[in-house]
Parts: sequence; structure tokens; C-alpha cells
Amino acid sequence: MSALLTDLYQLSMMQAYLDEGMAERAVFELFVRKLPAHRNFLIAAGLDQALEFLEDLRFSADEIAWIERQGGFSTRLLDRLRTLRFTGDVDAMPEGTAFFPNEPVLRVVAPLPEAQLVESRLLNLVHFQTVVASKAARCVLAAPGKVLVDFGMRRAHGAEAALTAARAAYLAGFSGTATALAGMKFAIPVFGTMAHSFIQAHASEQAAFEAFARARSENVVLLIDTYDTEAAARKVVQIAPELMRQGIAIRGVRLDSGDLAAHAFAVRAILDQGGLRDTTIFSSGNLDEDRVQALVQCGAPIDGFGIGTALDTSSDAPFLDAVYKLQEYAGIPRRKRSEGKATWPGRKQVFRNYGDDGKIAFDTVALADELHRGEPLLVPMMRGGRRISTATLAQARSCAAAQIASLPAGLRRLEPAVNPYRVDISTALRELARALDAATA
Amino acid sequence: MSALLTDLYQLSMMQAYLDEGMAERAVFELFVRKLPAHRNFLIAAGLDQALEFLEDLRFSADEIAWIERQGGFSTRLLDRLRTLRFTGDVDAMPEGTAFFPNEPVLRVVAPLPEAQLVESRLLNLVHFQTVVASKAARCVLAAPGKVLVDFGMRRAHGAEAALTAARAAYLAGFSGTATALAGMKFAIPVFGTMAHSFIQAHASEQAAFEAFARARSENVVLLIDTYDTEAAARKVVQIAPELMRQGIAIRGVRLDSGDLAAHAFAVRAILDQGGLRDTTIFSSGNLDEDRVQALVQCGAPIDGFGIGTALDTSSDAPFLDAVYKLQEYAGIPRRKRSEGKATWPGRKQVFRNYGDDGKIAFDTVALADELHRGEPLLVPMMRGGRRISTATLAQARSCAAAQIASLPAGLRRLEPAVNPYRVDISTALRELARALDAATA
Repeated sequence: MSALLTDLYQLSMMQAYLDEGMAERAVFELFVRKLPAHRNFLIAAGLDQALEFLEDLRFSADEIAWIERQGGFSTRLLDRLRTLRFTGDVDAMPEGTAFFPNEPVLRVVAPLPEAQLVESRLLNLVHFQTVVASKAARCVLAAPGKVLVDFGMRRAHGAEAALTAARAAYLAGFSGTATALAGMKFAIPVFGTMAHSFIQAHASEQAAFEAFARARSENVVLLIDTYDTEAAARKVVQIAPELMRQGIAIRGVRLDSGDLAAHAFAVRAILDQGGLRDTTIFSSGNLDEDRVQALVQCGAPIDGFGIGTALDTSSDAPFLDAVYKLQEYAGIPRRKRSEGKATWPGRKQVFRNYGDDGKIAFDTVALADELHRGEPLLVPMMRGGRRISTATLAQARSCAAAQIASLPAGLRRLEPAVNPYRVDISTALRELARALDAATA
Repeated sequence: MSALLTDLYQLSMMQAYLDEGMAERAVFELFVRKLPAHRNFLIAAGLDQALEFLEDLRFSADEIAWIERQGGFSTRLLDRLRTLRFTGDVDAMPEGTAFFPNEPVLRVVAPLPEAQLVESRLLNLVHFQTVVASKAARCVLAAPGKVLVDFGMRRAHGAEAALTAARAAYLAGFSGTATALAGMKFAIPVFGTMAHSFIQAHASEQAAFEAFARARSENVVLLIDTYDTEAAARKVVQIAPELMRQGIAIRGVRLDSGDLAAHAFAVRAILDQGGLRDTTIFSSGNLDEDRVQALVQCGAPIDGFGIGTALDTSSDAPFLDAVYKLQEYAGIPRRKRSEGKATWPGRKQVFRNYGDDGKIAFDTVALADELHRGEPLLVPMMRGGRRISTATLAQARSCAAAQIASLPAGLRRLEPAVNPYRVDISTALRELARALDAATA
């Protein structure tokens, strides 16, 4: 993606920095200021795309011509943009890490003009995948042992959202996605059944089932709610023996409307009585983690869930209060003090501490050069503009699984935690903030 | 964007259709089943990208190889995909049209395998821009005569969302966007000021203001809330005369935190007393249409608003219940009857009727071949896979302005309308639905 995918003000500021010769190293940190109402934790995601963006950062000749046509930009800036590359360092939490408000999840150290320019797209990449991974983790917690599939492409916010939502959901523990291109791009398992239109286009539901089974003999999942769900389940039982003689097994049926629990119990009984004990029941239709949990808790015999719009748009929390803030310039810590938006200054590290039960107990946000108890969460990812981390999506997925397993019970529930996770601010960091306020008051 | 950006099941169904020789013309319609709680109307957007997608539809060799590797797809399907193009017809409401639930906003008539395949991406494109244009229209209604700018890129759901949100907002009446690439791609005016980091990186706020003014002398908008808003406004007054001597005018200041109304009154007074009556006040910071309306209604002297996250994610309604349904195949109307998701069958048209006051009064959804009072809203856009409409973004923007102006007062308020807009279903359409139900019961 083009370097011009940025806010115009980044170019204005870069011009001023060049004019002033302000190219000392700047430290920016990306963090979330507070949790949405229905999130007890967040799962870091999108780092891989962020690092790729930084490695590939450059302006095309067309883009520089467009900037020139805007007027007011100097030849010095345009020349600088022609050869611009990102030469900085990145430390970050590995993808899949559970994190909390005010904890830097990614830190950029680079010459000020570079570090500033990349703000908009870094946030755009890390924010969205973190939104979806955090939502997906809740779905995973709601349905232990079930197959969860991303069904959200059609109502995702554009192409990139559909693709990266599939990735973030898989990272957080989903089994796969329905989006073919995401399967190709990220090597994620791809799932699919059929649409109502397929049934409707045929002279009868039974004809549609048989045609689909013959065409997709290795992956026969039949959608049975177009007209009458239980009647359709009986048709499935009826056609199964003849298909079996042709070597075709009906792997599953899908429910997409009505009272999913009631239909699932009824359909399970029909399938079992018809000898189709291995035919699974998959369900979809306006699902989110709360509905999935309710279905699981009432014991509905549903083997898997397609979660679409609520996942890809994170509909109950479609954004996080994620920001990217200057914390140090030319070796001097900086602090924004805007009302309600003050930041903790300086280059920071997050130290994680575990309890005797192996669960995470508390984090300490401290200055990066403090010695502190606990596991440092930010690790080197890029040096001098080159990636030094090559974590795979599979590794990120394992990391997320381990992190979700390490959450205390109160944070694993879908309901808001009675006791939010403890994040301490180190004494040295508090003192630095006070000193800076006193100096600039 | 690749044709493989689709749900896997589209390929499964296409394989079955090819096996069965089902390639008659199908009619699919895209519509929204119901309005979100805080929307009294929707604004159609995204058609231009949808038509571009259909014109460019093709699979690459790599993508076909990926499909082959999934297993279970026939040589016949793979061969068909190699030469696949979209050859169908599209009728649609022009971009900018106000529309309502159950009204087809776009109709595809094409051989069944083509019409089915394009479902996922057509929805993905039209849904999102309609979401944002509908949200943006509310912002426009909340702030008549004010400058509104899209500030949402950083928390938009990915790159395409950021770009098309800028487009949809402009279409609905915004003045422009902060996203540079959207400006280049769609020829939208681009706006920008400076970030807090720019202030923080300097030794003093005043030094930052002066440096920025010199660097961006034709577009000086200074961010004044980093430390103390009113103190910063006084600094602006202080530095203005010397800048003026250098031929540099301070066009505006930006407020981004705290009580925006109180700060705006105080800052306006400081600027006016300092002789800076032409310096405008721009504000931003977690704004949405409700906050903007409150600021406008209390008379806060704010000339323009940057609306970001709430716009680009449509945070109060991040999705619509938008669907794309088969309504006719091989000349025979079809009807989905799933519980709570039944559709009106057949190929339809929407007829719009106006009152004596020039405002829209009611619409009738009817069969396309019925003769009905009112203006038909769906018009030919593509024939045989080639676009026949060449509406520009400027025309769509004019259309949206006229449509918003034609809304009755009850629909123009941000509060839910006491009387929702009247959408009649024609007698012939009701009878067709009844007849189909009787035939397939």
C-alpha cells in the first residue's frame, strides 16, 4: 500500500521538520487508552502487516506529482520523499499477546520525519486487526471445542478489512474463514456451504441437495432452512442412502434462521433416527459471542458456528481508543497534557507477572531502562528498517491460545470483569511525568 | 481486486450450476432489510466501485491454481474460471439516492453462475459506502453551513475502508478528507493541520507555531490544546503580527480536547480581541453527529469539524442488514421463506412520489413491469457487462444534496422519526408472493 495512505498533516509536519533540520531520533508508542465496555482484555494483532508496510515504505512518482500539485510543498520535501525509506527500529508485543490499557503494544524509534509519517497507516493496520482478534477471542471463549468460521466478508468494511479480519480471527483461535482470497493470501483453512439462492434456483429443495452433493462430493454441507427446517432435515435423511451408495457422505447441515437451539435439537433427533450420526450441525445467522454462548450453555447440539458481521465489524465495539504518541525526542522525554488525554512520557516497557496458578497476575508499565520483575513484553522486531522477527501466523495463533489460557477466570467471562486487570505504573515513570509537568507548567 | 475475494461457497455453487447446465438468467436484488435504530433513511453509495468490479472481473492463473489445490473442484469449473467475465446487466439507484428498507438499490440480471459469484464483493462494496454515506448525511444535517472533514483514516477498518469512507463522506456532503491518497484517487479536497507530537517535539509551543507557519505559509492551522488552550490562543495572537509582516496569515486554530464549546467561546474572544477575526476555529476529538449538533445548537463559534472514528466506522451502526437475494431464475419468480428473512419475489422497481411541498412522500415497491405513479428509482447502469452510466462523484454529491433537501422534516432529525417513511408494497407484488407460497407450501 502506498506511502500516501496517510493524513495530509504528516506531510505538512515533515516539511516543517526538514526546514528546521529536526531529524533526531523520536520515540513513538502505540497504545490503547481504555477498554470498550465489553472487553476485559485485548489481543495484539496486525504487527506482521505493520512491519511489511514499514519495509516497503516509498512514494511513487505519481504520488509525488500529486503532492506537488497541492501547492505549498517545497522542493526539499519532494526530493526527500523521492528517496524516503523507513530506517528505524520497532519493538513490539508479539502478535497474539493479551494486553491492557496504557500498555505500549508497539514502539517506533526513528528519525522524527519518518516516525511521524507512518503514524496513520501503522494505527490503521494494528488497530483493526487488534479489534477483530479481541472480538474473536471472546467467541473462542464462548464456544470451547467448537469449530468457528469467519463468515463476515460481505459486510466487512471493504476488501482489506475482509482479508485481515479473516487473519485476525484465525490468529485468535478461529478454525478458518469463508473468504477464499484470505485462504490463499494467509494460508488459512477455508470453509463453505451453499446459499439460499442455490436452493431457490432449483425446482425443489431435494433436487438442490442432490445436485450439490454430486458436485461437491467431498464437502457436502446442506443448507436446510430455506423453507421448513425439519422437513428439509427429513429430506436429507431420505436422500442419504442413495448418495452413500455413490460414495458420497453428507458431512453436515447448516441452520441459518429461526430458533437455532430448538431447530438444532429437532434436526439432531431427525438425523440420528435416520442413521446420520456423523452428520454435523453447523449454524449461522446474526451470531455473536453472546448468542453462541447461550446456544452452547443450553446444550444445543451444534458442532460449529459461522460468525460474520458481528466479528468482522466488531459490531459492539467497532473501534478502540488506539493512539500513537510521541514519548521522547532527541533523548528528552515528552508528554502530552491535553485534558483527558495525557500520556505517560518516555520510552517504556511492559513487565508481566504471573501468579502461582500460572495465570497472569499484573503488569507494570515502566521506563524501558528500569530493572523490573516480570517478563518484558516488548521485544525487538525491526532494526534499521529491516525485520528481525519472522514469526509466522501459526506461531501467533499458538501465542494467542497460550495467552487466552493464561487469563484469570474473571477476564475470560464475556461479562465485564468485576476486577479489571491490574496495570501498575512504575514509580520512576510517575516521577518523570511529574517532573515534566513541573518543567513545562 | 481479485475475483477470488468471494466466499468459497460461490465456487462450490458455480461448480454445481455448471454440472447441471444451469446458466439461465437470474435476477438478484441488493436491499436492506431494516434500518438501524438511529437511521431514518439511507444514502446509496458504492455503485461506481461495484460497476468497476464487475467490468474488471477475472481470475488470475495463480488464483485458479489455488482453487485447484483446494481439491474437489472440477476441470470444467477451472476452465470456466479462466475465461470468466461478467456479461450481465445492472440497474441501480444513482449514488446519492435516499432509500429505505425492502427497496432494491441494485439489481443484477446475468447468467446464474455469474450473478451468484459476484454476491460477496458487490455487497462488500455497496454495503460499506452506504453505511458511511448514511452516517455522513446525518453529520451534514447536524451542521448546516459548516465545513466537515473526514478525519477517520487511522481507525477505519483497513486501507480500502479509509479510502472509500472518504469518498462516501464527500458524496454525502462533507467538504473533504484528511486522507491524502483518497484525495489523489477520488479528486476530493484534502485538509490538514498538525499533530500534538509536532508541538511536543519543539522546545516550546510558540516555537512550534512559528515553525509550522513558516513551513506551511498558505495553510496555517495551529493546534492549540496540547498544554493550555486559552494560553495557546494568546500565543497565537502574540505571534500573528510578525507573521503578518512576513505575509503569513493564520487561517485557523484547532481544538481537540476538553469542553469544546467553552474553549471555542473563550478562544474566539481572545482571537477577536487580538484582531484575528478572520482566523477560524476548527474542532475535532471524538466527534459524532450528536456532539456536533449540540455544539452548533449552543452557538459555539466553531467553523468546521473533523469527524473521524465515528464516521469511518459508523460506530453507532457499523453495519446494515444488507442482502443480495435471488428473486427470479429462468423467468420464474423465486421467494426465500426462512423465518424472519422472507423476501419479496420477482424483478422489482421502486416508484417515488413527492408531496405538494416538493418533499418525498412515499415509495411503492412494485414488479418492474407494473405501471405505477411516481419516479422509477432504478435506472440502467450496465448492459452486457459494459457500463452505460458515467456519473461522476460530483454528480453523485449533487444528487445526495438534492435528496437530503427533499427529505421531510421528521426524517431529517437525528432522533428516530416518529413516523417512519412510508414504503408501500404493490398489490401485484403481494399477490405474487402469496401465489408462490401456495405453490411451494
